[in-house]
Amino acid sequence: MAWQRVTRGNLKQSGRAFGDYITEKTIQGSGEGVSSSSTNVTKSYYSSSFRNVTTTSTINSNNLRHLSSFGSLDFGTRGFKATPHYQFPSAERVMEDSDLEWENTRLPGLEATKPSEKPRVVVLGTGWASCRFLKGIDTSIYDVVCISPRNHMVFTPLLASTCVGTLEFRSVAEPVSRIQPALSTSPGSYFYLANCTGLDTDRHEVYCETVDNVGLPNEPYRFKVSYDKLVIAAGAEPLTFNIKGVKEHAFFLREVNHAQEIRKKLLLNLMLSENPGISAEEKKRLLHCVIIGGGPTGVEFSGELSDFIIKDVHERYSHVKDDIRVTLIEANEILSSFDVGLRQYATNHLKKSGVQLMRGVVKEVHEKKLVLSDGTDVPYGLLVWSTGVGPSDLIKSLDVPKAPGGRIGIDEWLRVPSVDDVFALGDCAGFLEKTGKPVLPALAQVAEREGKYLVDLFNHVGKQNGGKAYCMKNNALGEPFVYKHLGSMASVGRYKALVDLRQDKDSKGISHAGFVSWLIWRSAYLTRVVSWRNRFYVAVNWATTFVFGRDNSRIG
Amino acid sequence: MAWQRVTRGNLKQSGRAFGDYITEKTIQGSGEGVSSSSTNVTKSYYSSSFRNVTTTSTINSNNLRHLSSFGSLDFGTRGFKATPHYQFPSAERVMEDSDLEWENTRLPGLEATKPSEKPRVVVLGTGWASCRFLKGIDTSIYDVVCISPRNHMVFTPLLASTCVGTLEFRSVAEPVSRIQPALSTSPGSYFYLANCTGLDTDRHEVYCETVDNVGLPNEPYRFKVSYDKLVIAAGAEPLTFNIKGVKEHAFFLREVNHAQEIRKKLLLNLMLSENPGISAEEKKRLLHCVIIGGGPTGVEFSGELSDFIIKDVHERYSHVKDDIRVTLIEANEILSSFDVGLRQYATNHLKKSGVQLMRGVVKEVHEKKLVLSDGTDVPYGLLVWSTGVGPSDLIKSLDVPKAPGGRIGIDEWLRVPSVDDVFALGDCAGFLEKTGKPVLPALAQVAEREGKYLVDLFNHVGKQNGGKAYCMKNNALGEPFVYKHLGSMASVGRYKALVDLRQDKDSKGISHAGFVSWLIWRSAYLTRVVSWRNRFYVAVNWATTFVFGRDNSRIG
Repeated sequence: MAWQRVTRGNLKQSGRAFGDYITEKTIQGSGEGVSSSSTNVTKSYYSSSFRNVTTTSTINSNNLRHLSSFGSLDFGTRGFKATPHYQFPSAERVMEDSDLEWENTRLPGLEATKPSEKPRVVVLGTGWASCRFLKGIDTSIYDVVCISPRNHMVFTPLLASTCVGTLEFRSVAEPVSRIQPALSTSPGSYFYLANCTGLDTDRHEVYCETVDNVGLPNEPYRFKVSYDKLVIAAGAEPLTFNIKGVKEHAFFLREVNHAQEIRKKLLLNLMLSENPGISAEEKKRLLHCVIIGGGPTGVEFSGELSDFIIKDVHERYSHVKDDIRVTLIEANEILSSFDVGLRQYATNHLKKSGVQLMRGVVKEVHEKKLVLSDGTDVPYGLLVWSTGVGPSDLIKSLDVPKAPGGRIGIDEWLRVPSVDDVFALGDCAGFLEKTGKPVLPALAQVAEREGKYLVDLFNHVGKQNGGKAYCMKNNALGEPFVYKHLGSMASVGRYKALVDLRQDKDSKGISHAGFVSWLIWRSAYLTRVVSWRNRFYVAVNWATTFVFGRDNSRIG
Repeated sequence: MAWQRVTRGNLKQSGRAFGDYITEKTIQGSGEGVSSSSTNVTKSYYSSSFRNVTTTSTINSNNLRHLSSFGSLDFGTRGFKATPHYQFPSAERVMEDSDLEWENTRLPGLEATKPSEKPRVVVLGTGWASCRFLKGIDTSIYDVVCISPRNHMVFTPLLASTCVGTLEFRSVAEPVSRIQPALSTSPGSYFYLANCTGLDTDRHEVYCETVDNVGLPNEPYRFKVSYDKLVIAAGAEPLTFNIKGVKEHAFFLREVNHAQEIRKKLLLNLMLSENPGISAEEKKRLLHCVIIGGGPTGVEFSGELSDFIIKDVHERYSHVKDDIRVTLIEANEILSSFDVGLRQYATNHLKKSGVQLMRGVVKEVHEKKLVLSDGTDVPYGLLVWSTGVGPSDLIKSLDVPKAPGGRIGIDEWLRVPSVDDVFALGDCAGFLEKTGKPVLPALAQVAEREGKYLVDLFNHVGKQNGGKAYCMKNNALGEPFVYKHLGSMASVGRYKALVDLRQDKDSKGISHAGFVSWLIWRSAYLTRVVSWRNRFYVAVNWATTFVFGRDNSRIG
């Protein structure tokens, strides 16, 4: 199988494969360069693999190049390799070890599809973009393999509500096997609970590592998956601006388990502050909830918290109700993408609900307090960090032309134009500058629209037999992707929300704030929840919260 | 306040307090004896407190005794002390340090109630017994303080259903502040998220340590609570028979977070076994679910698992559906307390559902396999341990006459007869042999009935002004507690259950197995779920599982 894959690569690139020489580098040197931008887990793998290759560390890429005539190596200058060949022992071993040993040490995995098989689409991620893509893919044309460290999609706009118990956690999580049943039932389709650690666009392979692989024969358990088409929708990571202590002490709000942790901490602090002998100052600190970042997530979470305090804390934690406070810290203006009237409304509303709004830039974060750049100390009991997102380590490590902001650069058809058969969308991708289009904001609606566009393109191309690797070139791709903003919404608590239907920041259009907006907000999200099961549960949760109040069991 | 408490103690025991001499022991020696039966967390506290008292370590108890005339110490031989005085630095410090330092080092806490205040009932635990007690307590007579490491009651009979997603976790958890709202709203009542680490029945004090007290000024954060009446309903702990590896590798099924862990592991194994390159043998191991113990919990969990496999795994994990197996290992007979006909029915039904029943005794447990006493290796991917319960470390450490099985010995009024104002009930208590009554089984219905009985007794005595410490003696307690078994139920999967209405193992009575029993099982539990909110949610969960199948998002 390996031969088949490589042969195909050579056929494709035969014009270049034997003629090009890449810059001379020692293997050791390049390896170090890559590992420094990687996570710790991956690092430990590197070090063990380097142990195997120390004897070959003086062999430079030029030497390897000559081996490509063996048919088992291909170092074309075209294409990008997040994880260079030499990090995979199989590449080096062939030179000095027997075929048998080479066979033993290569990674297990899904080999390239045969001509008689359906083409395989590999999708990285289970966010808005990838799930919309997965939902629409025509499984009579394609086999699908989805690789992600979580097996569900998170309905992010409602995540803030789960932290205080307005909604249950499961109501905002949609299992990916429900979104695309073929993943778990079709013989050639799979879902792998794994992180993608690198890829090789020449060999058309992605390299993976299972998450939480306790009890598997090798830890970390690594494998590879060959693709005919690759869809990178692996999302982004919270921006911390390298501020000291953020990762250690602050909570993010991007995943369901983040919400669970926030909820546990909030309920714990409420209970700890009741302990006999806790000083008034300590009590105030424990019950001070600080949110950094005044974007929609920060504002919605502040609103939910103030709702929780006004209704539930006052009723059910009456011993400590006067000590709990919420502070929202933002460097500039809150909700900067919204209409100025809505911003003013939100500001007034939050203030009336008891949320303290504070201008400031965080300098560093300690266990019990944060320090602003003007030297102010802000003691806190709960710190939630929501200052936007930036590229993940995987995206950073990819050696492709990038869009502004470090995202993977794409063209108008969401292709990564420097390589074949690779597409990128969602928060990890942005239009290349040469397209003349702006990088779209990291919003669910952008990601979902891109997913919808791309899957239509895939189904269209697939019907023209363009699904196999290197087979898309000759097919008409159709219209390029055009994004039309439908508007923005944000709830601010106490049955009030903002709806901004302007197409962008500077244009005119309808905007509204208040109870009607809140009704629009709820119904809009209810209809957008992916499955009927969760739509039902969200409605039931809202109703029971209204009737019975929020549940405050602290589990775990 | 300390004076008041001690004065009261001295008044009560003045006849003995100055005359008795307890056996001479060095402080260091006794301290070691106690710490060996305690948990690790407590040990670390001991070692730091011993650092403070090394200079006084040669002072024996006789010396301390003479100090009782100071009014601040009282070492009466009557009463029991789970945590002897000398483990609390305050007791030693008084001898060589100033009053100020003594004041600083004593534990913070709730001091004894004043005569003008309502008597304070301290309840340890939030299980069936304590929650039934809390629900019924007349808060116009008593202030209530509940101390427990979890802030909710678990509806244990339905816990097994949450592991596979038939029910949601929150549906079986009932926040204690919903069961007794006074705990969070009444000025003198509190809920403390803490473990009880010891008690002093002479001083009428319990000693506590908050759980998960990250961020508090001192870790572990310790405090004390004075009581007028103490209700010990702290439950029991899973029996492991000191078998090597059980605690490290097996899951118990007693708390909601146990169920969450089981669910996470089960879904993880299902996904890991799909990884490319996993050997057939390894796949079989990952998907082998082993349950140790054929009591109602083990059988119900097996039934739920087989339901999950038949319906959900076959439909949604079709790549691995043929490799998943369930084995129930029991040393004797399954469901030994049930009617023989029902036992036979359950055995046949489980076998038909694909559950392998195995006779065996576990010798040791390793990470990936367990070894039976006959030498058989049983490789497993998930191991659930449910072989009954025994006394916890706290109960073991109490120096009171015990009932058979190591439980706290009680009389027919659920009093601990050797001390004043202490009651025990539920799984941690059993009738003393001298009462001539058998120790009741560790069942929810026993605990609940005891809670109901005791709270009626408390409300009755309280109305006669018998709630204060040492004030119960002169009050008529009324009828002793008599337990009448209503019957047992257990579901076995696939809409089948057992209902055994015999009063005990040897008497005759109605028993039934099948679909009608299952309907009885479901409706009986539905009516017994504590709150309307959760009753509603259980019904909704059952309905959605029926319509949409189980949710398989793996969160966290």
